[in-house]
Amino acid sequence: MNSEDQLVERTGQAIPSGSSGRASDRLRLGIGDDAALIRPSAGTECVLTCDQFLEGVHFLANAHPPDSVGYKALVRATSDIAAMGATPRFFLLALALPAGRTGAWFDAFLRGMGRAAGQMGMRLAGGDTTKSARISIAVTVLGEIARGRVVSRAGARPGDLIYVSGPLGPAQLGFELVGRGVSRLPEFRPLLRLHLYPKIRLELGAWLARHRVPSAMMDISDGLSTDLTRLCRASLVGARLQAGRLPRVRIPAPLARRLRGLQFDPLQMALHGGDDYELLFTVPPSRAGQLQRAPGFRELTPIGEITRNKNILLVGDDGAAKPLRPGGWDPFRRK
Amino acid sequence: MNSEDQLVERTGQAIPSGSSGRASDRLRLGIGDDAALIRPSAGTECVLTCDQFLEGVHFLANAHPPDSVGYKALVRATSDIAAMGATPRFFLLALALPAGRTGAWFDAFLRGMGRAAGQMGMRLAGGDTTKSARISIAVTVLGEIARGRVVSRAGARPGDLIYVSGPLGPAQLGFELVGRGVSRLPEFRPLLRLHLYPKIRLELGAWLARHRVPSAMMDISDGLSTDLTRLCRASLVGARLQAGRLPRVRIPAPLARRLRGLQFDPLQMALHGGDDYELLFTVPPSRAGQLQRAPGFRELTPIGEITRNKNILLVGDDGAAKPLRPGGWDPFRRK
Repeated sequence: MNSEDQLVERTGQAIPSGSSGRASDRLRLGIGDDAALIRPSAGTECVLTCDQFLEGVHFLANAHPPDSVGYKALVRATSDIAAMGATPRFFLLALALPAGRTGAWFDAFLRGMGRAAGQMGMRLAGGDTTKSARISIAVTVLGEIARGRVVSRAGARPGDLIYVSGPLGPAQLGFELVGRGVSRLPEFRPLLRLHLYPKIRLELGAWLARHRVPSAMMDISDGLSTDLTRLCRASLVGARLQAGRLPRVRIPAPLARRLRGLQFDPLQMALHGGDDYELLFTVPPSRAGQLQRAPGFRELTPIGEITRNKNILLVGDDGAAKPLRPGGWDPFRRK
Repeated sequence: MNSEDQLVERTGQAIPSGSSGRASDRLRLGIGDDAALIRPSAGTECVLTCDQFLEGVHFLANAHPPDSVGYKALVRATSDIAAMGATPRFFLLALALPAGRTGAWFDAFLRGMGRAAGQMGMRLAGGDTTKSARISIAVTVLGEIARGRVVSRAGARPGDLIYVSGPLGPAQLGFELVGRGVSRLPEFRPLLRLHLYPKIRLELGAWLARHRVPSAMMDISDGLSTDLTRLCRASLVGARLQAGRLPRVRIPAPLARRLRGLQFDPLQMALHGGDDYELLFTVPPSRAGQLQRAPGFRELTPIGEITRNKNILLVGDDGAAKPLRPGGWDPFRRK
């Protein structure tokens, strides 16, 4: 039998939490009470975000391994903490499951989430578990940052350089491989990795905030075209991107031959593909030199610059500039 | 057209939030950025909780008015803050909606939630909006309390008196009226009120914590039999309840006659009915006198006492004690 209380108990055993004998001075009451009690560190501010990960919308329960669902649900929620330059500390898990997913599926899900929590140094502080026809996951993350150091979306200024922290498109490629039913072939497995187990840029985000390098920052979760539009709107500016500069997905030649019939366009995936969780940030030219000391410096790529004109333009290899419309993930856009 | 960004904008306009020109010193970045930035008050601890409210599980989209869905989703999540003795400050809304619910339904939902936020002095700090086949709502609430004043579930001691803060069963009665399809008759409307627009005991909870009166406290969300079992398990004690003492739903005589054929049992509703959000707390006899100064004192009712023996017993009107099994709301219990 699986009562709600038993599911909560299994969760507390599988994921580093306040109930597993690792209670610390800062997490004073964890899962199992009405609410978590957290004592903030001196001189810090709290950063709070939440994110949903839903069966049939964000993942397919029969195509995506359950440990990937648990891993990714926590990592993608935590990416918004990286995007502010903060350090994640605690999370809450609101979970709704069909009764048929409370056995082996749930254990594998918890293993994946526990692994992600361990890698990112986070602890489960509470949550809510209930039943539903489809799996629904909402993760709330609490992070902290030294006072006055947060980097918002709203500070980009004309002339600032626009950077991304790594290749754009790998997650979209993995998503397409799953969608087209070829993901079970072993040779494609390396191409699925970032779709199933995304990496986020916690160390880089915290470094950038600590050294006050960026004027604005966010993570790319819905695709560059959509998220750059959001950053520019918040900063009341525009942007001019160089198509030739965009770091794209690289597919080893033998695999590329096998994928040729499937018509992947690396530029389109870089512009509109979601789920990569790379950082998008802007840097005044006078501070760009400091980036050489940033963690992961080699992967940082300048892709354009911020403009006073509020349009978002994409400059092609022929030098012609065309408007770039938000074409990333929007669940409510009509196809 | 309703893009995700437009839904977020409408949300920020309808609910007191950091984006609606009411940003304060404590909420430094609200909805519209990656995460909320909150500066905790000096000398306080953070209390953090989340709660789900799902179509088809907790409410019926065609039977429950949308403003009640919005109102109740926020109130029930906030009840866990009252149960710790803390004061709610900010909340995050994770919402998944079918496209057909993004128009008038969504506006009424936001009105209900905005009204609840206004009454409780809370502000929306962020969230996540996406699409799904059924409405799914997860609310995270951040509250604060003076250091060292929180009341957990784990402090009850043998001999402590057990109190509830008001009648148990009214929400269950309203739920049954909706379920049996008689809720649209105007004369039954007053019986639905606490089911649709629950009250929580924020002022009482904060008073009790401030004066250090209770040894343990929680809210009754899943039913007295289930929640008292949780409190006793956390405190490593048992309880002896007096059935005759339980404050029950009172139905005016003319309505009671009309409901006679429907077979409601007020004692069963008081023991196992969920959703009332009254406080359940234990008080050492030496401190019980202080309760006379508590807000809502007249509604506080002693219903039994904590025992060293770990069973939960119900003493009937005939003086015979029988074991009371958890019979409240558990989504995973087999019927």
